[in-house]
Amino acid sequence: MSLTLNTEYLKGFLTEAELSAASKEAAEAARALAEGSCAGNDFIGWRSLPTDYDREEYARIKKAAARIRESAQVLVVIGIGGSYLGARAAIEFLGGAHFNDLAPLKVLFVGNSICPEELQHALDLCEGKDVCVNVISKSGTTTEPAIAFRVFKKYMEDRYGKQEAAKRIFATTDKARGTLKELSDREGYETFVVPDDVGGRYSVLTAVGLLPIAAAGFDTDKILAGARAAQQAYANGGDNVSDLYAAIRSSLYRKGKKIELYTCYDPAFTMFNEWLKQLYGESEGKDGKGIFPASVIFSTDLHSLGQYIQDGERTVFETVVAFRNVRRDLTVQAEPSDFDGLNYLAGKTMSEVNRTAMQATLMAHVDGGVPCLVLEADAMDETSLGELFYFFEHACAVSCALTGVNPFNQPGVEAYKKNMFRLLGKPGYTK
Amino acid sequence: MSLTLNTEYLKGFLTEAELSAASKEAAEAARALAEGSCAGNDFIGWRSLPTDYDREEYARIKKAAARIRESAQVLVVIGIGGSYLGARAAIEFLGGAHFNDLAPLKVLFVGNSICPEELQHALDLCEGKDVCVNVISKSGTTTEPAIAFRVFKKYMEDRYGKQEAAKRIFATTDKARGTLKELSDREGYETFVVPDDVGGRYSVLTAVGLLPIAAAGFDTDKILAGARAAQQAYANGGDNVSDLYAAIRSSLYRKGKKIELYTCYDPAFTMFNEWLKQLYGESEGKDGKGIFPASVIFSTDLHSLGQYIQDGERTVFETVVAFRNVRRDLTVQAEPSDFDGLNYLAGKTMSEVNRTAMQATLMAHVDGGVPCLVLEADAMDETSLGELFYFFEHACAVSCALTGVNPFNQPGVEAYKKNMFRLLGKPGYTK
Repeated sequence: MSLTLNTEYLKGFLTEAELSAASKEAAEAARALAEGSCAGNDFIGWRSLPTDYDREEYARIKKAAARIRESAQVLVVIGIGGSYLGARAAIEFLGGAHFNDLAPLKVLFVGNSICPEELQHALDLCEGKDVCVNVISKSGTTTEPAIAFRVFKKYMEDRYGKQEAAKRIFATTDKARGTLKELSDREGYETFVVPDDVGGRYSVLTAVGLLPIAAAGFDTDKILAGARAAQQAYANGGDNVSDLYAAIRSSLYRKGKKIELYTCYDPAFTMFNEWLKQLYGESEGKDGKGIFPASVIFSTDLHSLGQYIQDGERTVFETVVAFRNVRRDLTVQAEPSDFDGLNYLAGKTMSEVNRTAMQATLMAHVDGGVPCLVLEADAMDETSLGELFYFFEHACAVSCALTGVNPFNQPGVEAYKKNMFRLLGKPGYTK
Repeated sequence: MSLTLNTEYLKGFLTEAELSAASKEAAEAARALAEGSCAGNDFIGWRSLPTDYDREEYARIKKAAARIRESAQVLVVIGIGGSYLGARAAIEFLGGAHFNDLAPLKVLFVGNSICPEELQHALDLCEGKDVCVNVISKSGTTTEPAIAFRVFKKYMEDRYGKQEAAKRIFATTDKARGTLKELSDREGYETFVVPDDVGGRYSVLTAVGLLPIAAAGFDTDKILAGARAAQQAYANGGDNVSDLYAAIRSSLYRKGKKIELYTCYDPAFTMFNEWLKQLYGESEGKDGKGIFPASVIFSTDLHSLGQYIQDGERTVFETVVAFRNVRRDLTVQAEPSDFDGLNYLAGKTMSEVNRTAMQATLMAHVDGGVPCLVLEADAMDETSLGELFYFFEHACAVSCALTGVNPFNQPGVEAYKKNMFRLLGKPGYTK
């Protein structure tokens, strides 16, 4: 386990007694989770995914990924919410924000909005390239991915013929029921399973996340190994960084810190932040309660939200994810004329400067009244990624217990859908 | 003026008396702004940019943009904060999030982080393509863009030789002083001006924004025309949508709505949201006050933050930017087997479905206790973009007056910089 949690920037914001009380609650909540006696306990299948996965399916995932890489330059991944955020977070975390411009296989995430231009652009980007499709939907009827899949099914069949298209389409869906499963069986698509006991936002370590990640060329064995280390470390409630993180954030919330700012100093973390916002927002934001999840990339957004964080309403706390090692570094070179006054940095690497910016910012924000947590991992690699996924999933479940909400439901998401189906005249929804 | 502000989703959240009092204050603030008697009045040059710009420089911007388009397939724009957000917001608003994958000229925004890998990837993306550089910095010494420019100056000189590189580098900087101006004069770079009386976050309608936008192939005349219409409409305080928006958001803030969620149903608006977050966060977030600016793209994020918005803490309000017309549409086709149950949508366009999703969501969120404002523009085109830039700039200045803060300073941004320079041993900063 490489993850450590630095709490030195919390001093003065929480008392020992507050943190100790919350830690006790967190340990109890973690035990209830381990015993399966927690709220929403029909959705805790994610807990054992790193160890108890279906070996036969996992082998098929790897084979399908290899086939995709051999036969396509574009993989179109159709899904919304938990059906795309985890994979996209992983691919950009591991490959950088410019992954699609630099890698041999582009991974396009579509069907996560109802914007027609976005869908047209995805079709444009397929021009002249070979394409595979991975459609991800438990039911097959979620509006956004269903519209996109109708378009791409036709596109693939027009282009490749029905038989070849069927070999290029992979469906991740319910194991037995639903329109997408039925269609797949009829058409002969290879299928992978969205388990019944794993909710969308907890599904990145199922085929939902693993197939696109493997197709993008990353090592899912290592991701699972990282997650497995975390699973073992947090198996018993109490003395671990994930429970501690849950205790701290819940304590801060009780003391009026209403906004959590997920922060990283590497732009490749941008979509991981989005994954975090779904995980925490959808799990905690209910019954009129919940920390509002926001995100920033520094130093970029120090020149945007930095002023607010330093000096606005004192309701923000910061959770920084930092990495001990970088993938590629670059040394600042001396310049004979020192035209920009930067020679004082000559010989330093950018990663050293970036790390110093982080230390400087932590000090400034604490001075300004913003409690900061620093979660430190080894590197932006597969193993750390697996650890981070599991770390945040576990802490989220524990945090919700401290707030007194069910971490695994999302009743509020239905409200707009019901209105929409009624307005659109969907059968069964009367005006 | 195409902008309208729909306030029907505010009913029950604000009384007539509250709104009327705030509107009166807004009108007074707008008059003080027009008279130049407001706080920070040495930074209100942005107000007259759509009419009082330097014609000679504007002609040079267009010529430089044409030269860039003729001689390069990549334009590297080096800048941070206000020196990149406006141009990037505009280019993605007008060209979509996939602009760089589809247009003949890629626009890469670099020097907005200290991440070495990000910078290396930008260099990788220049391989085999002709390159121009636009470096944007008032002083020339801001750390992030200065590091990036050191790297790209060397890259350009190594690749093209000093003389040709100088023709391919364009500097947007102070009109007379600073290290970047001095260097540019020495090396023979063409320069454009960051005016003294326009702050970074208000600079999109100067050369800072206009050169990259024009180079990307968009019509800056129309952007300025849209902004000009807004300038004229808001010239006198009071009876206009921008002052009304300022009055509403300030009233909501006074009633405990602490988070403003900038919302759009088109992914091409993503970076405009980021521009808004800088504009409002940096202007309002001071003296322990200010609305926290957050952003979402729907329906994407209804499957992420939707649960929180519907049912979490009741401190959120929503500002939706909507468009009457779309650029490209797509009609849902009938499917003989109706395998996904979507035939009830057959014959409808995606934009109709998207618009219905918006109506359904507005109703749901209001029911859930979230006041919503809908700002409606004609289309995602240059004219509306110009209007929107000016609308939000003006409203921001007025809003700050209602909160009692100076809209044009950012004292809190210095705190981390001072620490950083000290830690890095910058001359003049002692440990």
